[in-house]
Amino acid sequence: MAEPGVHYASYLQLDQLLDLQDRESEKAGRPAHDEMLFIVVHQAYELWFKQILFELDAVQGVFAADRVDDRAIGRASRALHRIHEILKLGVHQLDVLETMTPLDFLDFRDLLRPASGFQSAQFRMIEIRLGLRADDRLAYEGKSFETRLESPGRERVVEASGQPSLFDQLDAWLARTPFIELGGYRFREAYRQAMVAMLEGDIGHLTAHPTLDEAAREAEVAALRKALSRFDALFDEARHAEEAAQGAWRMSWRALQAALFINLYRDEPALQVPFGLLSLLMDIDETMTLWRYRHALMVQRMIGLKTGTGGSSGHDYLARTAERHRVFGDLFTLSTYLIPRSALPPLPEEITRRTGLSYGEGAGA
Amino acid sequence: MAEPGVHYASYLQLDQLLDLQDRESEKAGRPAHDEMLFIVVHQAYELWFKQILFELDAVQGVFAADRVDDRAIGRASRALHRIHEILKLGVHQLDVLETMTPLDFLDFRDLLRPASGFQSAQFRMIEIRLGLRADDRLAYEGKSFETRLESPGRERVVEASGQPSLFDQLDAWLARTPFIELGGYRFREAYRQAMVAMLEGDIGHLTAHPTLDEAAREAEVAALRKALSRFDALFDEARHAEEAAQGAWRMSWRALQAALFINLYRDEPALQVPFGLLSLLMDIDETMTLWRYRHALMVQRMIGLKTGTGGSSGHDYLARTAERHRVFGDLFTLSTYLIPRSALPPLPEEITRRTGLSYGEGAGA
Amino acid sequence: MAEPGVHYASYLQLDQLLDLQDRESEKAGRPAHDEMLFIVVHQAYELWFKQILFELDAVQGVFAADRVDDRAIGRASRALHRIHEILKLGVHQLDVLETMTPLDFLDFRDLLRPASGFQSAQFRMIEIRLGLRADDRLAYEGKSFETRLESPGRERVVEASGQPSLFDQLDAWLARTPFIELGGYRFREAYRQAMVAMLEGDIGHLTAHPTLDEAAREAEVAALRKALSRFDALFDEARHAEEAAQGAWRMSWRALQAALFINLYRDEPALQVPFGLLSLLMDIDETMTLWRYRHALMVQRMIGLKTGTGGSSGHDYLARTAERHRVFGDLFTLSTYLIPRSALPPLPEEITRRTGLSYGEGAGA
Amino acid sequence: MAEPGVHYASYLQLDQLLDLQDRESEKAGRPAHDEMLFIVVHQAYELWFKQILFELDAVQGVFAADRVDDRAIGRASRALHRIHEILKLGVHQLDVLETMTPLDFLDFRDLLRPASGFQSAQFRMIEIRLGLRADDRLAYEGKSFETRLESPGRERVVEASGQPSLFDQLDAWLARTPFIELGGYRFREAYRQAMVAMLEGDIGHLTAHPTLDEAAREAEVAALRKALSRFDALFDEARHAEEAAQGAWRMSWRALQAALFINLYRDEPALQVPFGLLSLLMDIDETMTLWRYRHALMVQRMIGLKTGTGGSSGHDYLARTAERHRVFGDLFTLSTYLIPRSALPPLPEEITRRTGLSYGEGAGA
Repeated sequence: MAEPGVHYASYLQLDQLLDLQDRESEKAGRPAHDEMLFIVVHQAYELWFKQILFELDAVQGVFAADRVDDRAIGRASRALHRIHEILKLGVHQLDVLETMTPLDFLDFRDLLRPASGFQSAQFRMIEIRLGLRADDRLAYEGKSFETRLESPGRERVVEASGQPSLFDQLDAWLARTPFIELGGYRFREAYRQAMVAMLEGDIGHLTAHPTLDEAAREAEVAALRKALSRFDALFDEARHAEEAAQGAWRMSWRALQAALFINLYRDEPALQVPFGLLSLLMDIDETMTLWRYRHALMVQRMIGLKTGTGGSSGHDYLARTAERHRVFGDLFTLSTYLIPRSALPPLPEEITRRTGLSYGEGAGA
Repeated sequence: MAEPGVHYASYLQLDQLLDLQDRESEKAGRPAHDEMLFIVVHQAYELWFKQILFELDAVQGVFAADRVDDRAIGRASRALHRIHEILKLGVHQLDVLETMTPLDFLDFRDLLRPASGFQSAQFRMIEIRLGLRADDRLAYEGKSFETRLESPGRERVVEASGQPSLFDQLDAWLARTPFIELGGYRFREAYRQAMVAMLEGDIGHLTAHPTLDEAAREAEVAALRKALSRFDALFDEARHAEEAAQGAWRMSWRALQAALFINLYRDEPALQVPFGLLSLLMDIDETMTLWRYRHALMVQRMIGLKTGTGGSSGHDYLARTAERHRVFGDLFTLSTYLIPRSALPPLPEEITRRTGLSYGEGAGA
Repeated sequence: MAEPGVHYASYLQLDQLLDLQDRESEKAGRPAHDEMLFIVVHQAYELWFKQILFELDAVQGVFAADRVDDRAIGRASRALHRIHEILKLGVHQLDVLETMTPLDFLDFRDLLRPASGFQSAQFRMIEIRLGLRADDRLAYEGKSFETRLESPGRERVVEASGQPSLFDQLDAWLARTPFIELGGYRFREAYRQAMVAMLEGDIGHLTAHPTLDEAAREAEVAALRKALSRFDALFDEARHAEEAAQGAWRMSWRALQAALFINLYRDEPALQVPFGLLSLLMDIDETMTLWRYRHALMVQRMIGLKTGTGGSSGHDYLARTAERHRVFGDLFTLSTYLIPRSALPPLPEEITRRTGLSYGEGAGA
Repeated sequence: MAEPGVHYASYLQLDQLLDLQDRESEKAGRPAHDEMLFIVVHQAYELWFKQILFELDAVQGVFAADRVDDRAIGRASRALHRIHEILKLGVHQLDVLETMTPLDFLDFRDLLRPASGFQSAQFRMIEIRLGLRADDRLAYEGKSFETRLESPGRERVVEASGQPSLFDQLDAWLARTPFIELGGYRFREAYRQAMVAMLEGDIGHLTAHPTLDEAAREAEVAALRKALSRFDALFDEARHAEEAAQGAWRMSWRALQAALFINLYRDEPALQVPFGLLSLLMDIDETMTLWRYRHALMVQRMIGLKTGTGGSSGHDYLARTAERHRVFGDLFTLSTYLIPRSALPPLPEEITRRTGLSYGEGAGA
């Protein structure tokens, strides 16, 4: 007689779970051994995708508020950290799938048409909820990818497209950062001054102590002047709008400033956790990108130059999405505009006093 | 209108798969966020366990034959390699589970009683089919673990216990190795001679060129004589039987010789693939052990000194099974008895001619 | 003509670095291929050990202060995170070393006597500086391990033993936590009350709704009463001293309370970063333990039951140190004493106001 | 007094090894903490590069022979497996480097000019010895990369460029495969017939059972006819030469056939180890590619859109080399031309008898 209470197998619904692996090759009367692996790997991915979406619910719940509770940021950070760990596992999982050889895949590949990983509604939702916009997607044979999805996945994807993404929410949260503009302090002005001083110093140094030959020196000076000009987008709202229209920036002007501020003054007590949060977003962006690229390599190994079962153009298309489908690229681009700590303007006392406070408290002032 | 054929979501039965995550905490009206992770991790493990059992079917199918087809050994090796990759992923998967903190676990832990990982019938089957015997299991509160299982898992486990394990099959296959006893050649005799010559040479060297002080020299000589005596189990069937009865060996006398032979002469064409096979068994044994140990660490982190939800004594019990539940320990112990290649007796020409042939061909002679 | 400035090869001193791999087997006139790997792996480990010690310098520099600057905690956390990543790489690095087979190792093993990994002064220093005390070390053949070290490693190890360890510094820092005793608030009293209420409620519930049979119910009630008694060490200084004397606790009474407080109220803005810090210490402790255990497995694979080249008793000794040489075990044990968030007493307003402040600011009040 | 013999610290030359980390920032009087990590990571990479070159020596030694000894192939496979494990570790090692933030890098980055990872002579040698040709390198600012190297690295790179690469050796070894043309048997003819039969069958099937609409059917038929034509390069030497001239193939005509043969009939005893060898080459190619790509991502994170310290155009250049600098791409492309096992022509008895023999023995006949 079983003890009362919850039991492992029934809790995990193992009878059902372990009965969901139906090989098409078996139905067709020619069982292919490796189709089992193919199914199990993809089902494991989908379980993890569900978990990622569940964590995104939590994170987006936190950032949906007009005023984000500082107490909740630790929680959101942990959820993002978990998503990152899952994505790393997802990259690792390809090691298992690659134990299947191309010849083994051929044993059942033709039976899967037109199924395709493109049809994973959950993966599309992850992309969309992170912030991938329909227009940013690499066009594929002129069709929108939604047409490839079945119900109810398609409806869920369409619905997700209509909601604010994590990118949007974070941009809004960053844009509300109180510290970048407080009393008479304008972070962007202080930073611009420091940067001009530093670059002018470098130019002066180059001219005074010419260790390089003429041409090299001129090239360096030109590079420095170009750097100065490049910075302008950060300091001049109109210039930012112009560059954003050309696709150079996606983040809003104020959010960019805040992200830069957080990166530079990350040791301030109130900024330590936000800094960790931005780092996690970059980790997630990078690991998603790596996963896409690794997947593209695996596809090439498996099918060579063929197109996918769903008609996708295979390796090349996938490899190109690796870069194209990134969401938080601006955070990487920001590194271009950092100046060394030694050249960093100290924060006014008014600000350090407030960044000694927690983030949101400061926000409320 | 959907195209005819197989679609991703229906192929993977995603509607059902993604509907099997029912949180007890939600039923109890106090939803605990991290219970979702807990369920997903365990379901992912169970999917992988299914895959491992499926691969074991293939491997055991190959080795069930009285005469193993050489063409099938490559296939069996690939299946074992895949099992190893899955086990490595399984260790990695604990990184994701450890993003749950003890406090998060407490939110729903009491609702799971008496469920326990001990109740995973599939994991028990993997252990049993690899070769873990009921008597070797670390006793746990005097109960046999089968009583903890639900139907139909329990019946499947009992059935598996009655079948030959991979350990048994491999032992039999090794014991049939043709090369260790062929014509007038007896591998064990040739090897014993080489070993005696080597050790006697070492003893002579120690006596003649005493770089060590008296006491150290005597200790070394004693160690060498002990080594000689220790080898006897490999060369003397009665001695082996005696030691096996005391638990020092599990593999049969002939199988041990064959495993040693394969390790020593692994470069012979016919032995390259069998050598790879033995290495994979050690990889699997080692990674299972590591997984158990890592799991024990995680349990300690999660619940400290408490007992498990199913009443298991937690960390200590689990840590002790890491070593105790190993199956292929003899292959590790064999390393004790290797002698350097420089002291290795060359194979007689009759043997090299035959190990130039494939393994089974030789077996047929 | 080379450009002026720093060049890759000279910056990294590659001419020297890549000339430090002298194989004993080559000197002995019988070059063993795998000895190169053996040297490179160990040199890579030593480089990483140097880096870990360098990071420990930074972390210990932060916590050496009588009053730790909150701005520095983010920096210390990043250094601990880096140490953890290096340790994970160190575990992974064993995968490479294991591509050497026992037979390959035999080709040069005898030439290395009495060298041994035990003689790594840097690894000993890492252990000591984290907090491993001489008395906690598993005795090995009655000799203190320092006698195995060469100069100047020995002197550096002895010196490190005389300095405060990270364990000591963190204990002191935790013990100074302002929040656990503030105004009329005593965390330990509030927590004890909540815990008693919860456990008494559970006992009442068990008695009123007996779903279990008599014997099981009594066992549960006994377990609950035992849990109550077990908690006492946390609330009663004399009891803690007693248990600490018996080795049950290493952390000080106040530090334990603070660690518990931080774990329970981790979402408070001032506690988010300290919570991350405690988690990193557990990560480091766990990965060190795992590394030791994995190393023990590898040694067994490589030499079976033999003793190490330096005379160490091999696998068994190493496996036992895995658990024995842990430093931050108390943080794991603390999980035993957590109560669910639902039973957690809310913080008084005075405290939440102050934990809204940064940690150190609060400390100063 | 120290025991006689080899000691750990002197064996590993630790005094020298651990004294090779000189920070430019320290010399400049403004020590940057993270420069130590930067040096250690790169020195660890260079140690591993040395090991990879050492293993390549062994592998190339085996394949340099006009007639490769079958006994040596196991050894070569183990060396390639080790290289693959090292490369995987190399990818992982980037996780440690990424604990450095862009701002930390800025603290010392300007001091490193014009040093650059491009100047790693060992990495260039690995690429060259695997088979990367000077002409295949992605041009970088019109300069050949050798000009960036210092002596003696430059000379060693130039010397390596003049030697046969592993690619060349393997191509020659494959081209000598005895089985693809034996007695009256021509693998390419048998394979072409099977493929034509299969494709014609598919075309017939499509026409007879039109489940697709007219346009789709015609598209599929066209695709099949295109597939037939695409195969021709494998069967027609002139066609292959033409396509090779256009860069579609790098492997020789006979080597391609042999690689295809080995992939298809991998279960034959004589082909199991060669199949493993080809798989390892693909593993190595894939992990090198992944490492390059991951490195490109890290560079972008670290410096945004800036050029490298050595003037390299950073992320974009690096990302493009990931694909461009692959050596064994043909092995991936071959997957395009596999036909399912069910359509595979059985080997004539003459061949199976000989592939029951070891590879080289057969070769000698």
